[in-house]
Amino acid sequence: MQTIFFKKQPRIVATGTIAGPKECAGVVGKCVDKALLDDMFEESTYEKAECKMLKYAVQQAIINANSTEEEVDMLISGDLLNQIISASFTARDFDFPFLGVYSACATLAESFALAATLIDGGYQRRIVAATGSHFSSAERQYRYPLELGNTRPPQAQWTVTGAGGAFIADMGTTNSNIAITSATFGRVVDFGITDVNNMGAAMAPAACDTILAHLKNTRQSAKAYDLILTGDLGALGSRILKDLTWEKGVDIANNHVDCGEIVYNVIEDEFQGGSGAGCSAVVFNSYIFDKLKRGELKRVLFVATGALLSTVSSGQGESIPGIAHAISIEVV
Amino acid sequence: MQTIFFKKQPRIVATGTIAGPKECAGVVGKCVDKALLDDMFEESTYEKAECKMLKYAVQQAIINANSTEEEVDMLISGDLLNQIISASFTARDFDFPFLGVYSACATLAESFALAATLIDGGYQRRIVAATGSHFSSAERQYRYPLELGNTRPPQAQWTVTGAGGAFIADMGTTNSNIAITSATFGRVVDFGITDVNNMGAAMAPAACDTILAHLKNTRQSAKAYDLILTGDLGALGSRILKDLTWEKGVDIANNHVDCGEIVYNVIEDEFQGGSGAGCSAVVFNSYIFDKLKRGELKRVLFVATGALLSTVSSGQGESIPGIAHAISIEVV
Repeated sequence: MQTIFFKKQPRIVATGTIAGPKECAGVVGKCVDKALLDDMFEESTYEKAECKMLKYAVQQAIINANSTEEEVDMLISGDLLNQIISASFTARDFDFPFLGVYSACATLAESFALAATLIDGGYQRRIVAATGSHFSSAERQYRYPLELGNTRPPQAQWTVTGAGGAFIADMGTTNSNIAITSATFGRVVDFGITDVNNMGAAMAPAACDTILAHLKNTRQSAKAYDLILTGDLGALGSRILKDLTWEKGVDIANNHVDCGEIVYNVIEDEFQGGSGAGCSAVVFNSYIFDKLKRGELKRVLFVATGALLSTVSSGQGESIPGIAHAISIEVV
Repeated sequence: MQTIFFKKQPRIVATGTIAGPKECAGVVGKCVDKALLDDMFEESTYEKAECKMLKYAVQQAIINANSTEEEVDMLISGDLLNQIISASFTARDFDFPFLGVYSACATLAESFALAATLIDGGYQRRIVAATGSHFSSAERQYRYPLELGNTRPPQAQWTVTGAGGAFIADMGTTNSNIAITSATFGRVVDFGITDVNNMGAAMAPAACDTILAHLKNTRQSAKAYDLILTGDLGALGSRILKDLTWEKGVDIANNHVDCGEIVYNVIEDEFQGGSGAGCSAVVFNSYIFDKLKRGELKRVLFVATGALLSTVSSGQGESIPGIAHAISIEVV
């Protein structure tokens, strides 16, 4: 089954979030646990700063859940750096087991889905699922050295500097009423996009595929959700998604928001908005989670989206397939 | 819990394997589904050849299980290339959902453990879990351009060119008697090794940690297993592991074998033996699986081992932590 259901409704107990100065100028600024004044986070390299942010998010999620590291059964995490070193080196500093996952910017939803599966099945009780990204480490790994000062095309997005994670637990261990009720695992969808600056267009077809599969498998209309939240399609990608779903007879115009589209106050060169694994990690775990806690949102379909490429695959002329994993979150 | 138990004992129905010419000169040569005469596999780049091998392994596992692509619920896969592009591009060619995972050369065991979890919990019925690697794509990504002709130090290993996967299914769907009965998820263990040519030493402490945790959690002695099969420690790493477990009062001298140690007929420059995600993928899914099928082995603890590093982390002076995930496989 592409969609699986969690009868025991694992709960999101708490989240931990941190973001850079540019990110904190936007909607998430008032919601994150820590707003960085300097995106180096007192480290000597961007990669170390990214790793430190991720570690902070994990620790803060545990603290906010009123739990301890000893109680945590497992960390599920991944990131955009080669060989997911941010996640691996974060896991090194904890005593609990580590599951490394990767689906580009869809990694958070994959982590949540696996955490919910392990808890719902009775295998684990408390799992932290987290991810993050850093503009500067991503930029120099995927594109050009920062010092080169390349201009960016208008369809480009800006990798979010930030990290976010959630403490997910068996309902018997918590009084949280925010439940993960189902997960829809994404298929890899390739529309032949080859422009590495146009990730939104590369990912939108995958988001469409997963949303339609989810609605079909759960026999619901898009209206069943207060919010269909995609990961980091950006403004252009979000428009493409609305068009693609509309063509299939599904109207999400009124309840679809994209984390990448809302994360920045677009004032200079973010163009289509935010991207990166940290984009949905920060927006979902701070701004959206706060709304769930306050009851302003009751049913959210969170569809994180990932573009599957590397500098080598693009260099060898491959197109950019996309993937999207979805989880439904309900206040119960 | 670090160790989880699968009460419904998901079955390994069949496997699919492919390996390069150098690999097929060794013990796996007679067991793989396809022995390549040319490691380019009729592709134009090493990366495309690696991806094609992985796709072959997935397809062959489905064929050997007498199943069809329509019946498969999901592919769980990862590989060593940046952003696991071999796995992602393999998944693109199939209609079923894809879960990307990464724990370096421990990826196969992680994939098997997650597949067993999803099936045991009743969420899925048939999953293909696979991984692979290619000497030439790994060498030029992690080390030096092949054309440079660098000499290799004696502690080095040789990345296996090959791929392997298994078709894992609910016991109700098959008459296979080869069951996955438990999984022990590894913690990240760092002994401070910084020599990128000495992966065996970097991974051995993680293998020791996971094996000891497994034996403790399952209340068994090492003798309970006919074979404790590690992933790709190589000859030196295997010796270190035996020493480390011996120091903790656990003697695995007589029933421990390392896939990396046995994969090659060492005649030239493989030194400590094989490594890479494809190493255990090929050895376990061909040579060892055949012994399980014939009943020559009845209880195997498969402990795939991964070294968590990237060229960036090593370049920034980070040490190389290791991780090992274990699954117990029993003929029931």
